[in-house]
Amino acid sequence: MSQLLRVQCFCVSRDGFGSGEGQSLERPFGHADPAALVSWAGATASWVNRTEPGGTRGLDDYFTRDHAANIGAEIMGRNKFGPQRGPWQDYSWQGWWGDTPPFHTPVFVLTHHPRPSFTLADTTFHFLDATPVEALARAKEAAAGRDVRLGGGVATVREFLAADLVDTLHIAVAPVDLHRGERLWESPDELLDRFHLEKVPSPSGVVHHLFWRR
Amino acid sequence: MSQLLRVQCFCVSRDGFGSGEGQSLERPFGHADPAALVSWAGATASWVNRTEPGGTRGLDDYFTRDHAANIGAEIMGRNKFGPQRGPWQDYSWQGWWGDTPPFHTPVFVLTHHPRPSFTLADTTFHFLDATPVEALARAKEAAAGRDVRLGGGVATVREFLAADLVDTLHIAVAPVDLHRGERLWESPDELLDRFHLEKVPSPSGVVHHLFWRR
Repeated sequence: MSQLLRVQCFCVSRDGFGSGEGQSLERPFGHADPAALVSWAGATASWVNRTEPGGTRGLDDYFTRDHAANIGAEIMGRNKFGPQRGPWQDYSWQGWWGDTPPFHTPVFVLTHHPRPSFTLADTTFHFLDATPVEALARAKEAAAGRDVRLGGGVATVREFLAADLVDTLHIAVAPVDLHRGERLWESPDELLDRFHLEKVPSPSGVVHHLFWRR
Repeated sequence: MSQLLRVQCFCVSRDGFGSGEGQSLERPFGHADPAALVSWAGATASWVNRTEPGGTRGLDDYFTRDHAANIGAEIMGRNKFGPQRGPWQDYSWQGWWGDTPPFHTPVFVLTHHPRPSFTLADTTFHFLDATPVEALARAKEAAAGRDVRLGGGVATVREFLAADLVDTLHIAVAPVDLHRGERLWESPDELLDRFHLEKVPSPSGVVHHLFWRR
């Protein structure tokens, strides 16, 4: 089977925003409360950042446990790595993801300001100044036959959609409005010319939007 | 995380039957048309028996691709292996599952008539005359830290439920009535004393029933 480029567990507000306005070191989601977007996932048994036993094993858990299934690499935009803009002032800061990042694969960070690769636990971060096509080729090679996750944020997802490189998307629409910030879409219907769409409401209040190529 | 015993992609009719009446070599599901029960799964990209490219990647696909996720062994009843009853007349027949069985792990077949183990491709069938507790211990050991799938059929699922050994169940209820055969339940509510339940309708017409322990 061919390698897919998959968006997994990407959370947006009911009005289409993936993050709020004013990203900073202290507020990766800007003015938005990230809990409002991702609490559905945090409640599940398979949530990637879960540190204590327990958690639900219903519908939402299928999505969180699929997050890493058959994924061999991730591509992310620079803003998912950190809030810095422009040339790096300091290589000692190693991203928002802690000493044990939840990726467990190579991660390719798209940036116009590359810096040396480094490894934290079983995640290696590489920094690429590359087009989506070039980045995807690198990530597929690193994934060694497995799929590649397109991790976001919004601008990165939109860039790869514009290049028509995305095979499947799972977008979790949370029951909250953000009013401003980084917008993924005005409406999910914008993708219907190229993708099938199933909308699956969850008891948690999110509506899972599942897209795959026509 | 502890090893779970999971029922995965187990299909029943709207009136609660997992197979029809009169199992035979030619009709593993007796009078029931298996397509009516399992066609939702066969349409997906990740269906375990898929031989051609294509298939849907919506909700139903999450269930078929989870079928083998983190599974290290399967337990099945004898009737899922073959239609024979009583002592084996013939060891040359090696089950309904072909030269490349879709399990890819050790499989423990419960029977009062054990026979020698054998291997087909990457699946090894073992035959156990054992209680559910004993069989689960053997399967967990073979699964080497991964979960164990309880593959059915109905009588086997009921036996392990009666012994309170099942951690999660995914039961796909198909929009068809069978009227007679092997009955899993009168109603899914029978399990509510011990399990949470989410019912998730799929566009394919099946209703996925997701149970996990309270």
